[in-house]
Amino acid sequence: MHVTDTIPLIPGFQIASVDAGLRKKSAPDMCLLVADQPCAAAGVFTTNYTKAAPVLIDITRLESNPGAIRAVLINAACANACTGDVGLQNAERSTELVAVQIGCEQSQVMVMSTGVIGVQLPMDKIEAGIAGLSTGLSETGWQAASEAIMTTDTRPKRAFVEFSTDSGRAVIGGIAKGAGMIAPNMATLLSVVATDVQIAPDLLQQALKTCAESSFNRVVVDGDMSTNDTLLALASGRSGVVIDAANLDSFIQALSAVCESLARQVVQDGEGATKFITLEVSGARSDVEARQIGNAIATSALVKTAFYGGDANWGRIVAAAGRSGIAVDQRQFNLWYDEVQLVADGLPLDYDEGRANAIAGSKEITIRFTVGSGSGTATLWTCDLSHDYVSINGHYRT
Amino acid sequence: MHVTDTIPLIPGFQIASVDAGLRKKSAPDMCLLVADQPCAAAGVFTTNYTKAAPVLIDITRLESNPGAIRAVLINAACANACTGDVGLQNAERSTELVAVQIGCEQSQVMVMSTGVIGVQLPMDKIEAGIAGLSTGLSETGWQAASEAIMTTDTRPKRAFVEFSTDSGRAVIGGIAKGAGMIAPNMATLLSVVATDVQIAPDLLQQALKTCAESSFNRVVVDGDMSTNDTLLALASGRSGVVIDAANLDSFIQALSAVCESLARQVVQDGEGATKFITLEVSGARSDVEARQIGNAIATSALVKTAFYGGDANWGRIVAAAGRSGIAVDQRQFNLWYDEVQLVADGLPLDYDEGRANAIAGSKEITIRFTVGSGSGTATLWTCDLSHDYVSINGHYRT
Repeated sequence: MHVTDTIPLIPGFQIASVDAGLRKKSAPDMCLLVADQPCAAAGVFTTNYTKAAPVLIDITRLESNPGAIRAVLINAACANACTGDVGLQNAERSTELVAVQIGCEQSQVMVMSTGVIGVQLPMDKIEAGIAGLSTGLSETGWQAASEAIMTTDTRPKRAFVEFSTDSGRAVIGGIAKGAGMIAPNMATLLSVVATDVQIAPDLLQQALKTCAESSFNRVVVDGDMSTNDTLLALASGRSGVVIDAANLDSFIQALSAVCESLARQVVQDGEGATKFITLEVSGARSDVEARQIGNAIATSALVKTAFYGGDANWGRIVAAAGRSGIAVDQRQFNLWYDEVQLVADGLPLDYDEGRANAIAGSKEITIRFTVGSGSGTATLWTCDLSHDYVSINGHYRT
Repeated sequence: MHVTDTIPLIPGFQIASVDAGLRKKSAPDMCLLVADQPCAAAGVFTTNYTKAAPVLIDITRLESNPGAIRAVLINAACANACTGDVGLQNAERSTELVAVQIGCEQSQVMVMSTGVIGVQLPMDKIEAGIAGLSTGLSETGWQAASEAIMTTDTRPKRAFVEFSTDSGRAVIGGIAKGAGMIAPNMATLLSVVATDVQIAPDLLQQALKTCAESSFNRVVVDGDMSTNDTLLALASGRSGVVIDAANLDSFIQALSAVCESLARQVVQDGEGATKFITLEVSGARSDVEARQIGNAIATSALVKTAFYGGDANWGRIVAAAGRSGIAVDQRQFNLWYDEVQLVADGLPLDYDEGRANAIAGSKEITIRFTVGSGSGTATLWTCDLSHDYVSINGHYRT
């Protein structure tokens, strides 16, 4: 599946971005995706109990109106989280303003926010922003939109595929933002994906959940989970390609390619990240146990700083595995850095330390770790913990 | 309870330290605690499944011989973890060498190691070290011993109390090492505590476990748990003060004071730490749930970097609480930085941001966080995550 980072257009959708003055610096900070016709929609949301107002609203809208979503509004610089009833009212008011501008019901509009927690949306700026967005809609606005939703991201994230089914060719394109507060176990970050296939909402939800599990839910930057994580998918049907149970797999394959590309871009742009680490855990009693072991390793500050320093300090990996809560037997541990096996049956081999450190110091590293003879596996994508991560997050609000 | 960091002597014990050449730099790296007579002993150990050889041996010795321990050998620079059967044999051989030197059974000697994982003990140096230690024993060697067990610690940790019971006065003194790989849920780090009371091993074990729970198990530096964490207590009985069920509380109070002092010193000397944070969680449904919420906050890289930057970014605290796995209701959150309340019923108050940031930037901070109306509480001690933490751990082995 050939994935590109250029989204030419997605039939049935227009998108706009604008500088509404939400950021301290001058840069686009709002975007609006509008479908010409009501769309099938699906969503995956943060499992954080402290959910932001836009997440609470989107969950309700999807439940009541999964077959007729018309628009998604996104703003940066303010998460609208921990904002109480006023925050909910502001989020609803934003969708009402969009509905008036594009001529639909408020219940057909969804909303995402990202930025600082505990601050109310500046509604005067939001209102002016929405007015500007509705006049700037174009089929080719995807690149600018991907830049408008960035927070600590250093580069925009886009992915696009064209794919074939038994009923013709269709496309899927998506944008995402996210660099910190990234942990598995939910959708992670903000992302919106649009496609021109025709699909029932429940099938789209099934496909999106499957794809999130093998993409966004695999990435770890820092182990923190956001209050705002949202992944939405909209299907316009404009290609005439009908996706049903018979050809769902081909759609899932294409959607997975887009989600996986976006998820990898998130880790590659992880706050302060200098390395991309693929962690393959196998031999666990179940996939769930493999994931839990992998998560303990991928969130370990000691493991992550060792990668930053280019130190093949594998002892930290086996120590993290031992405290994951899963009963492991160190005598069954086998560990590889790329092609070099460092540990066999729990004991260090007489490997080339210089070669191991060279691998630990490279930009892309694959760690293979078998913990036993079970069939449980998990693959996670993570990054290192650098001085820049501390700098970025020590002064995020200032 | 007046705790001092000077240990004059503990009747019934001698201690020695020596530079056995285990470190890259020249500095004491082994110490040996020897009791004149067999002691009651107790221990609390890491719950990490990847246990180091000395931990495995100590657990066995305590089970078979809790009333007659004579010595504890400690070395820095090599953890003797992930070292297989050879590692176990080396640890046993070390205790055998000590036993020969001081004239007791091998089963009366315990051992602790700290340092790099996955490297075998250099037994020639260990053997020479033990010979040197046995000639250097003195009642007043505690200060030098506390320095000999340091790894990334920047200062030694000692605590001493003299206390009264209904049967007379007695003393408790302890030393500890630990600065990274510090997480709650077990004994954390290496520490040995000695006392001159007379106490049955099972009572000593009960007291030690109680005290560990309210001291070492409360501290978080980085959320990583070591393979070697061990806390041992030895009681010589030399004071003639008998501790039984009737006066156990007074002993526990004194032992707690020593353990709490050592635990606080560990956090204050946390790798790269610039701040000491007391986190008080209350209003949870149970103490266990309060602890789990507190642990999510205290291990959050985003929370810790915000403290490093002196940024009162409370949104990260409530976001971490929301992903702790405990069902919380953000509308019941109330949060204070020292005396300043920032959040009431889930919403930010109109507090003085400058004052809040000044608190977040100070050396000692108390965070009070009520999450509901339950009776569950937990207090944790933690520190910030700084550039120096990354520097220290990026190149630990080099």
